[in-house]
Amino acid sequence: MNRFLNLADFPREQIKDLLGLAARLQQHPQPQALAGKVLGLLFLNPSLRTLASFQSAMMRLGGSAVVITPGQGTWQMETRPGVVMNGAAAEHIREAVPVLASYCDALGIRMFAEGRDLAADLAETNFRMVADLCDKPLVNMESAVSHPCQALADWYTMDELRVPERGKFVLTWVNHPRPLPLAVPASTVHMAAMRGMEVVVLRPEGFALPEPIMEKAREAARASGGTVYETSDRNEALAGAHVIYAKEWGSPQHYGDHEADARLRASLTDWCVNESWFKNADPDCRFMHCLPVRRNVAVADEVLDGPRSVVVREAFNRMVVQMAVLYRLLRG
Amino acid sequence: MNRFLNLADFPREQIKDLLGLAARLQQHPQPQALAGKVLGLLFLNPSLRTLASFQSAMMRLGGSAVVITPGQGTWQMETRPGVVMNGAAAEHIREAVPVLASYCDALGIRMFAEGRDLAADLAETNFRMVADLCDKPLVNMESAVSHPCQALADWYTMDELRVPERGKFVLTWVNHPRPLPLAVPASTVHMAAMRGMEVVVLRPEGFALPEPIMEKAREAARASGGTVYETSDRNEALAGAHVIYAKEWGSPQHYGDHEADARLRASLTDWCVNESWFKNADPDCRFMHCLPVRRNVAVADEVLDGPRSVVVREAFNRMVVQMAVLYRLLRG
Amino acid sequence: MNRFLNLADFPREQIKDLLGLAARLQQHPQPQALAGKVLGLLFLNPSLRTLASFQSAMMRLGGSAVVITPGQGTWQMETRPGVVMNGAAAEHIREAVPVLASYCDALGIRMFAEGRDLAADLAETNFRMVADLCDKPLVNMESAVSHPCQALADWYTMDELRVPERGKFVLTWVNHPRPLPLAVPASTVHMAAMRGMEVVVLRPEGFALPEPIMEKAREAARASGGTVYETSDRNEALAGAHVIYAKEWGSPQHYGDHEADARLRASLTDWCVNESWFKNADPDCRFMHCLPVRRNVAVADEVLDGPRSVVVREAFNRMVVQMAVLYRLLRG
Repeated sequence: MNRFLNLADFPREQIKDLLGLAARLQQHPQPQALAGKVLGLLFLNPSLRTLASFQSAMMRLGGSAVVITPGQGTWQMETRPGVVMNGAAAEHIREAVPVLASYCDALGIRMFAEGRDLAADLAETNFRMVADLCDKPLVNMESAVSHPCQALADWYTMDELRVPERGKFVLTWVNHPRPLPLAVPASTVHMAAMRGMEVVVLRPEGFALPEPIMEKAREAARASGGTVYETSDRNEALAGAHVIYAKEWGSPQHYGDHEADARLRASLTDWCVNESWFKNADPDCRFMHCLPVRRNVAVADEVLDGPRSVVVREAFNRMVVQMAVLYRLLRG
Repeated sequence: MNRFLNLADFPREQIKDLLGLAARLQQHPQPQALAGKVLGLLFLNPSLRTLASFQSAMMRLGGSAVVITPGQGTWQMETRPGVVMNGAAAEHIREAVPVLASYCDALGIRMFAEGRDLAADLAETNFRMVADLCDKPLVNMESAVSHPCQALADWYTMDELRVPERGKFVLTWVNHPRPLPLAVPASTVHMAAMRGMEVVVLRPEGFALPEPIMEKAREAARASGGTVYETSDRNEALAGAHVIYAKEWGSPQHYGDHEADARLRASLTDWCVNESWFKNADPDCRFMHCLPVRRNVAVADEVLDGPRSVVVREAFNRMVVQMAVLYRLLRG
Repeated sequence: MNRFLNLADFPREQIKDLLGLAARLQQHPQPQALAGKVLGLLFLNPSLRTLASFQSAMMRLGGSAVVITPGQGTWQMETRPGVVMNGAAAEHIREAVPVLASYCDALGIRMFAEGRDLAADLAETNFRMVADLCDKPLVNMESAVSHPCQALADWYTMDELRVPERGKFVLTWVNHPRPLPLAVPASTVHMAAMRGMEVVVLRPEGFALPEPIMEKAREAARASGGTVYETSDRNEALAGAHVIYAKEWGSPQHYGDHEADARLRASLTDWCVNESWFKNADPDCRFMHCLPVRRNVAVADEVLDGPRSVVVREAFNRMVVQMAVLYRLLRG
């Protein structure tokens, strides 16, 4: 394994093998496995879990990490190809990535969607460009439409909690002050389908996930024996759910049009998960979210602070599964 | 020892034991004592000594540290309970602390006073809330009214310099462009009283320390054989002093009222320690300050650059005593 | 070796010895050579290569690094002597440097030219003041007119690429939206002269390097057998060049006068290196730049992305030579 960019790049068996390695490393730590190795972490966007969990994962395997955050002690960074650089950015990513890669044994890059051109974001135009500049093992720390470490951690969490492989997984849209990218919903629906679950995407009108994202999930479901469908009927979606996974995203119909998006979501304040959402769910139904989360906008305190919530466990498992990813990338 | 939040939580003998351990670790380094351990450092406020000395302390014991500074590459962080998060902050500390704790073997948290409600700050309302979220060993890196690592380093520094245990310790208010929190004056007066010294708090009218802070110091003095009193008479206070410890703080009378505080301090520009302050002090009188310090506002260059100043030694001893604290927290 | 501040502080043989050590460490890594050592890195100005390469260099030798960036989680820092600190800066560098030095085994400091007073910057007034505050081994990570690690890396890169020691080295001024400091041009012209090359400084009228910089380079050339001259004739300068090294700098004639500088450079948009600059150069002519670089302002994409460019190799060699510098500073 030389790159970890998207779960879809790997057969299901290889993902199961990674999950198994993560469990073994958790049970039997290998504090010298990556001794002397250096991981570079390039953050073009903010982070807390990714920033802390990649560093601690390296440290727990005996390695080290170097963090670069453009604009925070580092030059502002240009990403557009062919541009005349007479603005604020002093450095182009075309130099920054190969230079950082040259100092490190592996690189992690976070580069969110631009949020202007849906087709370009779905095609991962920017991340592909950047990935092509890196000649070292590479981890996607969240790109336009993929967040594979989150998806892997969520899969691991469901296995750990014995959520049935054929269980009902409801990814529900929730509200947020601004439109957020599609990386987590896209990765989540694909991951749950790949795991073989009955996947329901619950979202209000105007927030249907783009067809390429749904089709990729359906394809994974066909291979795993799972199913994928979408609905705006909350009662139907939540009935019997084993997992309610909340996520915020911008309207794909109004991609890049913040005003139209804002008008659409203004009337959707009841898309904030509270206890009532669980009344017809499975008695053991879990609440999942990738964090950070807007309390009492996307999810009510009573859910986040209640016994169904496994959001901290999901976050902890980021570190656990990333140890396996780094182990495979750096030791094979 | 599982938490290091306030010197007052420990009997005097345990503090002396920590100081002894610090001295032993300084004399006989143990570069592998914390190998494989990860310390998380969460800074809700700026820092230089704390940021650098905790990292170097861990490194010198073979461990590693992960630094998180909200708003600097990390999401802005909400701390108010029950809030509807539709503002700038994307993450609530209720998630951030348990998540960080899950990645680490111990956590350090810096969270200054809010400076609005004196009673709430004296009760450490915010820090207690945050500490309750952490299920790992925890160090207070400065809360509303406690900075135990600074107090411990200052105690160590006085022992090292053979300042008499019954010596006269003058904590003097000095000026500053803005009102600063009470954590260092509160911890300092308590520490010197716990050490058994003759403690004098010298401050202009309007800057008397809140009664709960003075009472806690008097209680420590009763146990140690020291004394504590306050005055605004500079000549009386400084006569025979073994230590002049300068510190800036806001008027407790006008807590949260920056304008009233500013009016009060406008006429107090002569509260800037210069050489003349030492003329009736003990010949070996030392000058102490926790840093950072406003040169020529709080303290004159001639004092900071003169032979009485031990401010750099105090700062160095932050690292020394924190090695002992981390050792106890992580190895018992 | 206790300080690495300027190549001119060392005889040519000692520099060659450092380059040899760098090559040996690259060929035969010593992953425990600096085990337990802590390097402090103080950045008063932005960085990417320096920030990442010093950390990775320490890590690859078994040591650790602590990064301090004033204003980024750390107090804003005052540098003027004697100042009354009633402004935004809470900490003076007179405390910050000795405190950081006390936590570390060696210190690196970056402190660019102030860009107001040419004589003061040429005299390294600020950096000398700061260096005097540090009682530990010290590395100059770029001061007003010196960037010795860049110069050493560039020398190493030319040796590695077998650029002839007597080859023609053209340092050419290139355009930039703002006037930049003289540290890299000054260090580069001196380094190439010290290496024994035929050094040409190509620059438009108004951008001649200050006489002290040229004289220092000529002195190095006299000792090494090289030559140094300057010209504004591009054809003459580039004919037969073995290296074209592009760099941006402000007009020394209008030092500190941004408007006059801007008027001068407004008509110099053709000072952007493109393929045509190489037509009469040596067939193996290399393109060098220290990075970061403004694409299509200072250098055209076609050059940076073409086969002549060795800019990423130069950046990688920063890490390689810094390992040697740190080794000498910390192990002798």
